[in-house]
Amino acid sequence: MRKILLTIFCVIQVQISWANDGYKLWLQYLPFENKAVAEYYRDYLENIVLIGNSPTHSVIQKELEIAIEGFFDMKNKPGINLNPSTALVWIGTEKELSKDILPELQSQINQLGDEGYILKYLHGKVIVTAKGNAGLLYGTFALLKQIQTREKLENLDILENPKIQLRLLNHWDNLNRTVERGYSGFSIWNWHRLPHHIDQQYIDYARANASIGINGTSITNVNANALVLTPEYLEKAAALADAFRPYGIKVYLTARFNAPMMLDNLSTADPLNPEVQDWWKKKTAEIYSYIPDFGGFLVKADSEGQPGPHNYGRTQADGANMLADAVKPFGGIVMWRAFVYNEKTPTDRIRQAYDEFKPLDGKFRDNVIVQVKNGPLDFQPREPFHPLFGAMSETPLMMEFQITKEYLGQETHWVNLATMWQEILQSDTYAKGKGSTVSKVLDGSLHEYKLTGIAGVSNIGTDRNWTGHHTAQGDWYSYGKLAWNPDSDIQKIGQDWLKMTFSTDSDFVKTAQGIMNQSYETLVNYMTPVGLHHIMARSHHWGPGPWVTGGERDDWTATYYHKVTKEAIGFDRTENGSNALAQYAPEWKAMWGNPETTPLEYLLWFHRVEWDKKLSTGNSLWDEIALRYQKGVEGARWMQSEWTKMNGKIDEERFSHISSFLAIQVKEAEWWRDACLLYFGQFSGIPLPAGVEAPKHDLNYYLNFKRNFVPGI
Amino acid sequence: MRKILLTIFCVIQVQISWANDGYKLWLQYLPFENKAVAEYYRDYLENIVLIGNSPTHSVIQKELEIAIEGFFDMKNKPGINLNPSTALVWIGTEKELSKDILPELQSQINQLGDEGYILKYLHGKVIVTAKGNAGLLYGTFALLKQIQTREKLENLDILENPKIQLRLLNHWDNLNRTVERGYSGFSIWNWHRLPHHIDQQYIDYARANASIGINGTSITNVNANALVLTPEYLEKAAALADAFRPYGIKVYLTARFNAPMMLDNLSTADPLNPEVQDWWKKKTAEIYSYIPDFGGFLVKADSEGQPGPHNYGRTQADGANMLADAVKPFGGIVMWRAFVYNEKTPTDRIRQAYDEFKPLDGKFRDNVIVQVKNGPLDFQPREPFHPLFGAMSETPLMMEFQITKEYLGQETHWVNLATMWQEILQSDTYAKGKGSTVSKVLDGSLHEYKLTGIAGVSNIGTDRNWTGHHTAQGDWYSYGKLAWNPDSDIQKIGQDWLKMTFSTDSDFVKTAQGIMNQSYETLVNYMTPVGLHHIMARSHHWGPGPWVTGGERDDWTATYYHKVTKEAIGFDRTENGSNALAQYAPEWKAMWGNPETTPLEYLLWFHRVEWDKKLSTGNSLWDEIALRYQKGVEGARWMQSEWTKMNGKIDEERFSHISSFLAIQVKEAEWWRDACLLYFGQFSGIPLPAGVEAPKHDLNYYLNFKRNFVPGI
Repeated sequence: MRKILLTIFCVIQVQISWANDGYKLWLQYLPFENKAVAEYYRDYLENIVLIGNSPTHSVIQKELEIAIEGFFDMKNKPGINLNPSTALVWIGTEKELSKDILPELQSQINQLGDEGYILKYLHGKVIVTAKGNAGLLYGTFALLKQIQTREKLENLDILENPKIQLRLLNHWDNLNRTVERGYSGFSIWNWHRLPHHIDQQYIDYARANASIGINGTSITNVNANALVLTPEYLEKAAALADAFRPYGIKVYLTARFNAPMMLDNLSTADPLNPEVQDWWKKKTAEIYSYIPDFGGFLVKADSEGQPGPHNYGRTQADGANMLADAVKPFGGIVMWRAFVYNEKTPTDRIRQAYDEFKPLDGKFRDNVIVQVKNGPLDFQPREPFHPLFGAMSETPLMMEFQITKEYLGQETHWVNLATMWQEILQSDTYAKGKGSTVSKVLDGSLHEYKLTGIAGVSNIGTDRNWTGHHTAQGDWYSYGKLAWNPDSDIQKIGQDWLKMTFSTDSDFVKTAQGIMNQSYETLVNYMTPVGLHHIMARSHHWGPGPWVTGGERDDWTATYYHKVTKEAIGFDRTENGSNALAQYAPEWKAMWGNPETTPLEYLLWFHRVEWDKKLSTGNSLWDEIALRYQKGVEGARWMQSEWTKMNGKIDEERFSHISSFLAIQVKEAEWWRDACLLYFGQFSGIPLPAGVEAPKHDLNYYLNFKRNFVPGI
Repeated sequence: MRKILLTIFCVIQVQISWANDGYKLWLQYLPFENKAVAEYYRDYLENIVLIGNSPTHSVIQKELEIAIEGFFDMKNKPGINLNPSTALVWIGTEKELSKDILPELQSQINQLGDEGYILKYLHGKVIVTAKGNAGLLYGTFALLKQIQTREKLENLDILENPKIQLRLLNHWDNLNRTVERGYSGFSIWNWHRLPHHIDQQYIDYARANASIGINGTSITNVNANALVLTPEYLEKAAALADAFRPYGIKVYLTARFNAPMMLDNLSTADPLNPEVQDWWKKKTAEIYSYIPDFGGFLVKADSEGQPGPHNYGRTQADGANMLADAVKPFGGIVMWRAFVYNEKTPTDRIRQAYDEFKPLDGKFRDNVIVQVKNGPLDFQPREPFHPLFGAMSETPLMMEFQITKEYLGQETHWVNLATMWQEILQSDTYAKGKGSTVSKVLDGSLHEYKLTGIAGVSNIGTDRNWTGHHTAQGDWYSYGKLAWNPDSDIQKIGQDWLKMTFSTDSDFVKTAQGIMNQSYETLVNYMTPVGLHHIMARSHHWGPGPWVTGGERDDWTATYYHKVTKEAIGFDRTENGSNALAQYAPEWKAMWGNPETTPLEYLLWFHRVEWDKKLSTGNSLWDEIALRYQKGVEGARWMQSEWTKMNGKIDEERFSHISSFLAIQVKEAEWWRDACLLYFGQFSGIPLPAGVEAPKHDLNYYLNFKRNFVPGI
């Protein structure tokens, strides 16, 4: 017996080790951590009345049920209170609210917009109210967030209106369910089963989006397939629109500019041709017969092979206005992307959108909004803000952020994108003097835009946790919060998200937020320090490719952008070079025009600099680049070691998943550093400075490193 | 106040409405339904000792933890017993078991094979034992199944050995993550993240398979990409093999026959060429350096465009033996598919596999097993058993079933495939007189095969419930159970699966099993009654296509098989026709050679019959066909109405999901009936008999019905 005892495992040590695949996102409604907390909220949760009757009210009721089920152990569920006279939480629109309560709230209700809400503690009761149903749903989610983040309810006095009207996700999802630049599996839209099967995931998608205030979704790729405009797919899109409607979410479609030719054999797609105009009017009426509240079109034209008005010698305004006229009678809008450039245009690629759109300012219909990427190139790890912001006082502009991380490590790197977005949103355009931030362009206050909007290119896919990396859920979350209010405090956003998603444990929240705060600069350092850009591998954009040159298009190569020689590196965009700098305000021209006053973050974006040039840090350019690559790698290792400390603080499944991805991140950070320093080092001819680790392989290894079927193309 | 009351919802009526996306399969470990049941099993579950130490032991421990967590409410978890002297459940291999217990079990232990297990109640203790670790894991799952199905433990006296050695899943998964004939999303293998990230889903995949005795998996498509044999992918396959190893599951790879040419530019792939043979030997050694227990190769050659030995005038045996020689030193095997046919061969397609392989009987190496589909055509809703079964006494044959429902309604139809499989497994080949069933061919007892095997083409994908239809999980489950023992009672299999997956409620189990029992015949009736076959749509095989004719290959059309005219329909396979019937035993030739004695299920498979021919049912052929189509539709509606009664018996999410798919099934059953009867009716010229509903549309509607991006190609 003694011998056996030595090898015995006792198996009954079951811990709170429940698997958590992350599907519930920030709507985990984690169980209350102790009895006191549970008892505090129990009073409220046992005594809710929801007044009114609509599909959105049903959705609110269901959400409260799900939340209560999460907060309490099944065996300790709150009882039922059917007596409104003792209710502690009142949820209803202003029309539904008790006349006893209304007068005291009237002055606040007067400040509410259509989608706003009030969350207020009044005479011992929590009041959730709004003008409309969507606001009421947002208010309910706000109340639940208070509870999820364990805030007291007695101090509640919140009045919130969204600062931006159109808050969209853009899915680059193809009809065959691949996702362009999607790294979390495939499209969640199962077109084949639609319209007959509405998957629970569509509902959970709508719940998640409504909880952060997203009110629109463009469900198909901007590299558009005209088929989505045919009855076969309109019937399916309509089924999605029906499912999303109670959540205040409208469906938008991408319009392929030559659809009249592809679907009905018209001989032209010229936007000034009456037959073409008529085709779009009829097609639009047909779409509205399927989807009465169809939001409108999102269009990528004259860019990267997509057809557009240029094919007929027309302007972007001609194209947009034709579609705008078609959707106008139905209240629809057109989101026209400014991401227009052409390899045959001889100027610097990053100049082209401004050159094209600035002269069209004021020439668009009032239901057109021009969608502009955050920077003038293409979602690089770091770019200065796009010069169109601030430059279009007569044409509403909306922001396009990329939530999916095409150029930022794709799904396996932890990067808190809110840090980057805040940098852009708080950039000063100086359009109307100091303080003319990009956020003020977007919320319409700077130019008094009638239409305001923001779009985020979705990072959602079929992965069990939606986004590949568990932490990429946080990018979806913070995008929604910044869409609601682009001046939001991203520290608060991050804390709330961590508490709602993982744990309210303060040590966990502090450590995880520490990682998040370092993550963006760390990534920039190990990928594209000192203003380097577009040096990733060809086509799939995964990993380093500073050697990419030649091929189909010069403006899709790395050498086009870094122009490395034995003497220097960088793209001169001052008046001595491409003069893209001229598109910015004089304040920026002064600062960025001079390499001495240009922040190192943008140095090689605007300037060509010699390898041995001494920088403000005291380092030569070469040493600075090398040391930043090294710092990036060390930052990734630090993130990994910080995360290791969180073992046991959250569920094992998500902890391990993130650990595994952090190991990949460290490995790939080293890959970036080694590949880039070996490649550029050939030109600089200068040894690596002290403190920078020797590369693991020789340059040939990196040049020949190839993986098949890299996702996201 | 009174006015408000009228519109109040009280929201706190939270029911047991927890969402269940089906991810846990039959390993739900559903909570005990009442205190008495919980207390009965608590005694055992609080007092388990697991003896020994290995990766498989860790897996066993973890599984017990997961199960206990499921069975008990978190607040009522069993305590810890560290005292083996009071243990009630002992789990250990024969080497690890107490010497006190061993003598009484010795005679049973002597009957154990490598993978077998004993589950026995002995002197107040439950003993789980086995010779090896895999058996111990299987035994543990068997114990947990007893508890999941609420069986008493005091009567336990089970000794089980698998009847078939190789029990594999075949994934037709491509390296780009599409799945050929996959209808539940995309491949669960995320090649890009491998080998660095082992997803929890791989572990859960291994758990599920081990729980039903699957011991091998071929992870890539038989339409093979040679890249999987390169270091890039071997490293990834090795990571999967490492993850699966503790679960007793070996990894197999599909070998593209011309890989030496594709990967290393050899000028030939001739299996008798020494350079080619040498290439495969080196390649195999390389594979084993990555995966020391690599199972071997699965090969599709000379079929549907795949390269093979025919390209060099060699036989299938030449091809198989070359690979067999390469894996032999490492203990590997070759599974060589018999699904070989060619449109240039002038004989009936269904004859060709037999014609090709029968003369090769005895010419294969002893580590080759020939993998034969259940029927001679291609996984049709109903086919007679493949004539090779029983015909190859000197060459081991293994079965290939298709769990994915390429021709059986794909993912949205509920069809209990076990019914069909049992029909095949219990078919009598008469090879050694009456009772020479296909199951006895497979378990090796009929011909004393040294190697036995069975493969199921996986229905697993990225869908949240793995298999698209929740009930298709049951096909995966029953496949595993029949692989373990092809003579298993499928009623017991179905009951166990329903209890473990959904509910132990007897009313639920009875009703759901009633549906399952009717589902197969129902589907055959609405798709291919009276022996019709291969009348589905072209290419994607979704929906009816009896009109499919012409094009690339005649043997891929419907008209090749039904040969409809105004006078008659059906394929004459008697000696007056293709004489495929000659491949069967005399007993079958006698029965199937005569239309009067041929069961109606196979009538048009073997015979051409005139429309007005009076059948044994008293109906003319046309009326019989029409009435069976109608019966199929009515059967599908009955399944739907039976299922509706189950509302509230299981969780809302899975109930609704299945309801939604049943609505699609009814709709598609009507589609099949209407399309086929309209098409064939043109030829018969006879009106529909009484009781058959008029078609919803005209024939043109069905001929022109087209959907884009149908999955599974």
